[in-house]
Amino acid sequence: MSGARFENVEACVFDAYGTLLDFNSAAGRAKDTLGDNADALSSLWRQKQLEYTWLRSLMGAHAPFWQVTGEALDYAMEALAIADDELRQRLMQFYLALDPFPEVAATLKILKQAGIKTAILTNGSPQMITAACRNAGIDVFLDAILSVDEVQVYKPHPSVYQLAVDRLGVAKERISFQSSNSWDAVGASHFGFQVAWCNRYDQRFDRLPAQPDAVIKSLAELPLLIGIV
Amino acid sequence: MSGARFENVEACVFDAYGTLLDFNSAAGRAKDTLGDNADALSSLWRQKQLEYTWLRSLMGAHAPFWQVTGEALDYAMEALAIADDELRQRLMQFYLALDPFPEVAATLKILKQAGIKTAILTNGSPQMITAACRNAGIDVFLDAILSVDEVQVYKPHPSVYQLAVDRLGVAKERISFQSSNSWDAVGASHFGFQVAWCNRYDQRFDRLPAQPDAVIKSLAELPLLIGIV
Repeated sequence: MSGARFENVEACVFDAYGTLLDFNSAAGRAKDTLGDNADALSSLWRQKQLEYTWLRSLMGAHAPFWQVTGEALDYAMEALAIADDELRQRLMQFYLALDPFPEVAATLKILKQAGIKTAILTNGSPQMITAACRNAGIDVFLDAILSVDEVQVYKPHPSVYQLAVDRLGVAKERISFQSSNSWDAVGASHFGFQVAWCNRYDQRFDRLPAQPDAVIKSLAELPLLIGIV
Repeated sequence: MSGARFENVEACVFDAYGTLLDFNSAAGRAKDTLGDNADALSSLWRQKQLEYTWLRSLMGAHAPFWQVTGEALDYAMEALAIADDELRQRLMQFYLALDPFPEVAATLKILKQAGIKTAILTNGSPQMITAACRNAGIDVFLDAILSVDEVQVYKPHPSVYQLAVDRLGVAKERISFQSSNSWDAVGASHFGFQVAWCNRYDQRFDRLPAQPDAVIKSLAELPLLIGIV
């Protein structure tokens, strides 16, 4: 862990995809069909999924994340010359049952037991993220699942981060936000949360106008960071 | 060329980087130093440059394109483990003297001679794009060089495309917009221009909420498309 300890944290808010849930596990489950294409497909699918959220938000043309996720998959499959409708359907279904990262359930449980509010703040459509949390067995440790669906614009627009403040009733300075996505950590930091970038993928800092307050490798470091253990 | 002919075009508006000017020519000129890294550096530099414009615009944290271009280069050089301040300075200077694509000057001249207004609408900072057009010898064929600098938000925000309407005094239905960037073509089409996607890089259609009206491989097809030859 690098960075100072967090102070006066009343709520821990988490990004979902890549932070709590492993989006690579969808393509991983279809490795029987995808073979050596699994990693390339997963990577391009994710890249386009994010690009499309940013571009739609800037154009003022929001669409649900479930739709955007399907459109990004269509692009990625075409780019890799994979034409297989059944595979497309399987991959989308796997996206509703992504593996949680190993430390997630235990970490959320520790936070709850210490009286910290826990929530997800996600691009995901409500039905999609609700199904994914239930399938991952982590819904029971969450006080709230908040979706950009309510504000009709995607991260890192400040309206998204404000949603957590409004819905949890906690001041932004008392919210600790965790994301594995560097740009999401920057957006949250620029907004005013205390931010931990969970650098799961060994990435470099992006050159953007804010920096997270701490860098962790796993969410297991979070209870120490906020001072409850 | 695919798609219908354009109608009643009074002004042709062009994206700059990738459409009139070859951004790969910067890294290409430093091939003596970059060697086999030239293509990878150019690609990552461009990708991060665009990501940073989208993310800054969504966060409400605009910065000039010259700065963003430098920050994207810093990221790309670090990712490729290239630590060389002199090279960084050379690459930034090369960005002010990018090669124009071969057909650009002749095409602009044909448009001007037919009485069509010509303009650039670019993310580029005013000084940066002015220098690049002068160095490429195409400034003399342009009625206007319009920069997002005036609206402090990047493409594909509709304010950027509206700038061309306001500054040229031409209705959007009578403007033909050309970009090699698929997402820029989509943004312009969603705004209401007649749009030609100049697919120089043999890319796939992005799955975004609008489509260009025509696909061309070179700007040399433009005079025929708008019906002046």
